[in-house]
Amino acid sequence: MSTSSHSYPMSGGDDNHSYIHNSSYQKAGIDGVQEKARQYILENLDLLNMNPNLSTFTIADFGCSIGPNTFHAVQNIIDIVKLKHLKESQENSLVPLEFQVYFNDLPNNDFNTLFRTQPPSSGQEYFSVGVPGSFYGRVLPRNSIHIGNTSFTTHWLSKVPEEVCDKKSPAWNKNYIHCNDLIEEVTEAYKVQFTKDMRVFLKARAEELVAGGLIIALGQCLPDGVAMYQTWPGIVKDTIGDCLQDMVTLGLTTEEKIEMFNLPVYFPQSSELKGAIEQNRSFTIEMMEIVSHPLEAMQLSNNFVTSMYRAILSTVIEEHFGDSVVDELFRRFAKKLSKHPIDFEKCKKQMVYHIVLKRK
Amino acid sequence: MSTSSHSYPMSGGDDNHSYIHNSSYQKAGIDGVQEKARQYILENLDLLNMNPNLSTFTIADFGCSIGPNTFHAVQNIIDIVKLKHLKESQENSLVPLEFQVYFNDLPNNDFNTLFRTQPPSSGQEYFSVGVPGSFYGRVLPRNSIHIGNTSFTTHWLSKVPEEVCDKKSPAWNKNYIHCNDLIEEVTEAYKVQFTKDMRVFLKARAEELVAGGLIIALGQCLPDGVAMYQTWPGIVKDTIGDCLQDMVTLGLTTEEKIEMFNLPVYFPQSSELKGAIEQNRSFTIEMMEIVSHPLEAMQLSNNFVTSMYRAILSTVIEEHFGDSVVDELFRRFAKKLSKHPIDFEKCKKQMVYHIVLKRK
Repeated sequence: MSTSSHSYPMSGGDDNHSYIHNSSYQKAGIDGVQEKARQYILENLDLLNMNPNLSTFTIADFGCSIGPNTFHAVQNIIDIVKLKHLKESQENSLVPLEFQVYFNDLPNNDFNTLFRTQPPSSGQEYFSVGVPGSFYGRVLPRNSIHIGNTSFTTHWLSKVPEEVCDKKSPAWNKNYIHCNDLIEEVTEAYKVQFTKDMRVFLKARAEELVAGGLIIALGQCLPDGVAMYQTWPGIVKDTIGDCLQDMVTLGLTTEEKIEMFNLPVYFPQSSELKGAIEQNRSFTIEMMEIVSHPLEAMQLSNNFVTSMYRAILSTVIEEHFGDSVVDELFRRFAKKLSKHPIDFEKCKKQMVYHIVLKRK
Repeated sequence: MSTSSHSYPMSGGDDNHSYIHNSSYQKAGIDGVQEKARQYILENLDLLNMNPNLSTFTIADFGCSIGPNTFHAVQNIIDIVKLKHLKESQENSLVPLEFQVYFNDLPNNDFNTLFRTQPPSSGQEYFSVGVPGSFYGRVLPRNSIHIGNTSFTTHWLSKVPEEVCDKKSPAWNKNYIHCNDLIEEVTEAYKVQFTKDMRVFLKARAEELVAGGLIIALGQCLPDGVAMYQTWPGIVKDTIGDCLQDMVTLGLTTEEKIEMFNLPVYFPQSSELKGAIEQNRSFTIEMMEIVSHPLEAMQLSNNFVTSMYRAILSTVIEEHFGDSVVDELFRRFAKKLSKHPIDFEKCKKQMVYHIVLKRK
């Protein structure tokens, strides 16, 4: 792909290949940690200090995709804020709360499907709005959000670092299609982009959040010292790259196309992530946990892995290679997996990070 | 169609038949009156009284459809509020304003197209959000909107009055497909529904608007004493009904289907409209003008009329008669028009109403 800042949402619609039906891995990650965020909110969210006359509590989900995980995440937040509000109302006479939820994603996200698949009960719980725009920049007015959530999003960079597609650069990524940590200069280029993007993300959120407001961020990172190619998601992407190479031999795509293609995706090591967050001075880090993904130790089925990565990557692959490539590529990928199944137990583990930041 | 409260948005996408490319009649109506709304805002909008520390000015367009008219309407409002803010800032030190625009329409409106066709400049002007939901009910939090706009929307009722599809009722509308004012009981049933819907619309907006906030409403009505069947839009819909009858003869649809089909559309006479608005005690009527549509006296081409009504009605027709009917129906309609062109000069005129309401 080119290095411009195009955007590649998850697969839209609600057919078999859609993100809607292939996002249970992400959901398991959310479920695994929600209890701690609930506890934090219950003990620490300072409704009175935010605004004693608060009548609308606003929640934003940054990079919401098309559901259902986003509905699940925001409902969790609403449930606990309601409980907190009820408790505080017994001591102080607070105004009844209405909730407004801002569902943010890129302008080419499938908002139609998002709106049409909202749980029917959500209408009683909150006012929904869709916010089109890259979260690597402001998408909401100043001081307008009480809790911002983001789940499994910040590994999507605003763009591929230019040098990894430049054959003359030492950071050229050859015919790999992602940052698998096999070329040091490539990792460095991705890391620089990630750090920059994280700075922009947090700066924008700092402006959008009210004082005392929270960011709840969930995502994946690598333990320090672990390289991407040693993990199963790294192996998956390297295998997809191998399948593309096979397709070159058959004339179904070209070597040049592969050389120019890199995923705008980077999973930082945990200390890098921490460093990137600590750089921002507008927030205090209230909680930062690096935990195992609940499904990490499980032997996932080949079908599950194929469907999951098809839902995540088909848009970006289609954009670069054309839409005729996707079916063939994932057919080949499934076949390769069945011949050489991933040995999940032997793989190094990616981790899930779970962070709560508070706007100073 | 059934009398349930299904929703029928304008034709989505951006092909030849889409609302995007067939909404210039509505735009001409907006252009015709915008200057007066600008003047009103400039002279009367009370920014200081709303909130001296106001940092986000919020505008909602209720029933925005998919553009481009909605972008045009909100930009007009923003331009004049900016001017007003600049003027007031010279006397009082006001906080710089950011704008947030809520684009509201039914959940099955094509929000994807709306977001993807926003003028590139809009990103510098305001934060956009899409609000899925019927405006015959609350769609936004209490006290959250400064100016609400609605253009050519409130003739779409929340539902068809049940009795007009009931063969045993004196208000049965026979094989007419809309309220053409030929059957008194039908008109009465539609009028009751319109009055009820207007009450619900204004009650919801009264809750959503801040004190001092404005509703700018634009739409079509009939002069007192004029019947729908005497106007060219009435003739158009009666002619579409005739074409459906012709299709019964050929076995392309059935008499029963037509008898159960009525458009959820009603254009009140101007005194009715005024009465419906005056019933609501939460607003003062700051301006109420009934003017001619700038294109009313023009001889519109058959192509223009066919394309315009196809964009408006194809969704609701398709839902009831099936998608195979739409092409054939509008082919026949175009043919009938070319044989019997509408004599626009002889028709009675519909009027454009333009209202500014202020939240007490």
